Amino acid sequence: MTAEILSVGTELLLGNIVNTNAAFIAQELAKLGISTYNQSTVGDNHERLVAAFAHAFETSDMVITIGGLGPTLDDITKAAAAEYFGVGLVMHEETLSKIEAHSAGRFSENIGRNAIIPEGCEILLNDHGQAPGVVIEKNGKTAILFPGPPHELEPMFKNYAVPFLRTKTDRALYSRTLKIIGIGEAKVEVMLQDLIEAQTNPTIAPYAKVGEVHIRLTASAANETEAKNLITPTANEIYRRLSPNIYGEDDFTLPEIVINLLKAQNHTISVAESCTGGLIAADLVSVPGCSDTFLEGLVTYSNQAKTTRLNVPSAMLKAHGAVSPQVAAAMAEGAAKTSSATIGISTTGVAGPQGGTPEKPVGLVHIGLYIQGRETQTFKYNIPGNRNIIRTRATKIALDQLRRALEG
Amino acid sequence: MTAEILSVGTELLLGNIVNTNAAFIAQELAKLGISTYNQSTVGDNHERLVAAFAHAFETSDMVITIGGLGPTLDDITKAAAAEYFGVGLVMHEETLSKIEAHSAGRFSENIGRNAIIPEGCEILLNDHGQAPGVVIEKNGKTAILFPGPPHELEPMFKNYAVPFLRTKTDRALYSRTLKIIGIGEAKVEVMLQDLIEAQTNPTIAPYAKVGEVHIRLTASAANETEAKNLITPTANEIYRRLSPNIYGEDDFTLPEIVINLLKAQNHTISVAESCTGGLIAADLVSVPGCSDTFLEGLVTYSNQAKTTRLNVPSAMLKAHGAVSPQVAAAMAEGAAKTSSATIGISTTGVAGPQGGTPEKPVGLVHIGLYIQGRETQTFKYNIPGNRNIIRTRATKIALDQLRRALEG
Repeated sequence: MTAEILSVGTELLLGNIVNTNAAFIAQELAKLGISTYNQSTVGDNHERLVAAFAHAFETSDMVITIGGLGPTLDDITKAAAAEYFGVGLVMHEETLSKIEAHSAGRFSENIGRNAIIPEGCEILLNDHGQAPGVVIEKNGKTAILFPGPPHELEPMFKNYAVPFLRTKTDRALYSRTLKIIGIGEAKVEVMLQDLIEAQTNPTIAPYAKVGEVHIRLTASAANETEAKNLITPTANEIYRRLSPNIYGEDDFTLPEIVINLLKAQNHTISVAESCTGGLIAADLVSVPGCSDTFLEGLVTYSNQAKTTRLNVPSAMLKAHGAVSPQVAAAMAEGAAKTSSATIGISTTGVAGPQGGTPEKPVGLVHIGLYIQGRETQTFKYNIPGNRNIIRTRATKIALDQLRRALEG
Repeated sequence: MTAEILSVGTELLLGNIVNTNAAFIAQELAKLGISTYNQSTVGDNHERLVAAFAHAFETSDMVITIGGLGPTLDDITKAAAAEYFGVGLVMHEETLSKIEAHSAGRFSENIGRNAIIPEGCEILLNDHGQAPGVVIEKNGKTAILFPGPPHELEPMFKNYAVPFLRTKTDRALYSRTLKIIGIGEAKVEVMLQDLIEAQTNPTIAPYAKVGEVHIRLTASAANETEAKNLITPTANEIYRRLSPNIYGEDDFTLPEIVINLLKAQNHTISVAESCTGGLIAADLVSVPGCSDTFLEGLVTYSNQAKTTRLNVPSAMLKAHGAVSPQVAAAMAEGAAKTSSATIGISTTGVAGPQGGTPEKPVGLVHIGLYIQGRETQTFKYNIPGNRNIIRTRATKIALDQLRRALEG
């Protein structure tokens, strides 16, 4: 079973939006063991979309489209699919009734177009919008049409398309992604070179992310358990070589792992940020249930705020400057002690583009880490990149230093 | 002149990375007036890549590839292009010398592969990496090969490809994007329906973003000035209908516009956040030079922090709960007064997924806005979506309410 992902939308051709949907569906198909050899994108043009269906079915058994299911004039995917398959368009009465019921007096003919579907197809329920998904099967070919908004597409795919797709494949692909922080992609590749060169099943694929490297191990077998077992020895060997730089796996994020460690060790934390400006707090608060352990974030951007909120001595700021290990340590201690948290973590740095000096260039970041009962630590980094890359990397480094300290 | 963007990489087919490069190049081509009718993606497979070149040149005069120029075995784009054009591969001595000079003793045969290029092509300098770009022109067809890392591709495109591409087109496209907040896409379309239906040149394209709608106006003319002038009357009409929901244009972000308004009016600001957890502070700090006006951010997630940091009365928290207009107002006032800022802005809400009740469901957010000398305002919203969408939207709404208050 091979599939092609066909994205529809002039906004993609103009570069107005980034195609995150294609990446989402590609990942989901890979998990199901369905191969994709091509992805393509066409604009809101009927003839070109029909031609794209024809071209895609030359090499694939299944075409999955994204977008163009809505009620406006540039939503053309259902009509193009109907033409390619040589079927008509009909009103799906159940969907129409549902739309009428939901629109409560604000019903318009326009909205009703969401209920027009190719004849003989099945629908996929849309729990988060008006336009249902569509499954067309004819002459050994399958087309699945999804709406474009990610918050409609993703649950529709997971809840309604996955059970259908499972019936289409007899292979299971299983993947594990090991998430690495603190060493670059080039070094990771060197450390794993022999494994990468000898890879067959599982495959080993390193991917560089901002401030991290992910290694994806993928095995193919008759069922998921066998595929899992194929991966284990390789994963263990990579852990042997790269731990403690491996912070987690798969969908676990660094903030989640940090929050879990804090909870397990009965810690409470407060954060004092200068250059990262709230990103560390925002990362921790992104984790549901963080309120058990996260007490406060203080974005003390001005020197005065560092003094009044965190008790950083003015004399220290004068003597060493705000971007210094001394101030980083005092900020971390101040965050913890003024909020009665057991842990305080801080950042102070030069995010640029202005404000760099030969001694304190753009990218210089000091991180402070106070843990009750231990000596306060500071870490110094010179981070390349623009203002927002520096801030994002500093945030990850700070969370990772906390993780390492908690993991011992 | 029509171009196809051809992305190369198994990591794209597996959904491991999102194709931001294709969006970047698509935008740049649109600015140059070069049309793209298709984008496609293939894996690191020689035969399929050669076939993709052939298919792309059936409908386009130019193919722009992304990725697969590096020195490792899965970097196959140069070889596939050479095969498609029927030319050999040769060593580009200048590039080789440059790589040798830069590698300072760490030179390996591997790195040297960056200097192997299709015979008879031109190179595009890579100021940020080893692999140069490649331009092949033969039989009226043009292929341009770019490396995949965005920090190499983007400056190479702007500095070296744009001057070359300008020689290929005699039309100029000009675009303006009006950024709208506070009304949904459906309503925007209804308010502009007659304009959208009558559009020719400029075209009018609405795009839904999280919490915003963008309207892109694009005109085509013999030169940029003419194209600009074609857009003006339509833009003015849209302003007449939608202002004050239009917060800005093009690359200006909402935080930048807010910071500029604050500076122009000699305001200083402090932020008190609960459910947004640092996102408002992080947005403001993303703007270079924010330190003139941004004093402090306080992520007062716990009730105790609201009391000790912001002087929110415990009795008020007990009487109304943390998620209440009273507490939102007290947080905004507390943020300003405890930091001597002229403005305080606050959020308190239920971000979920847990913690909702019938009276205070997930998505309920109160925003407080204190401006020195005015009555404190509060705003109540029920925001649909998951935890992070609720937090992101609440952040935008808060910044937008501040913008409206400052614009009067």
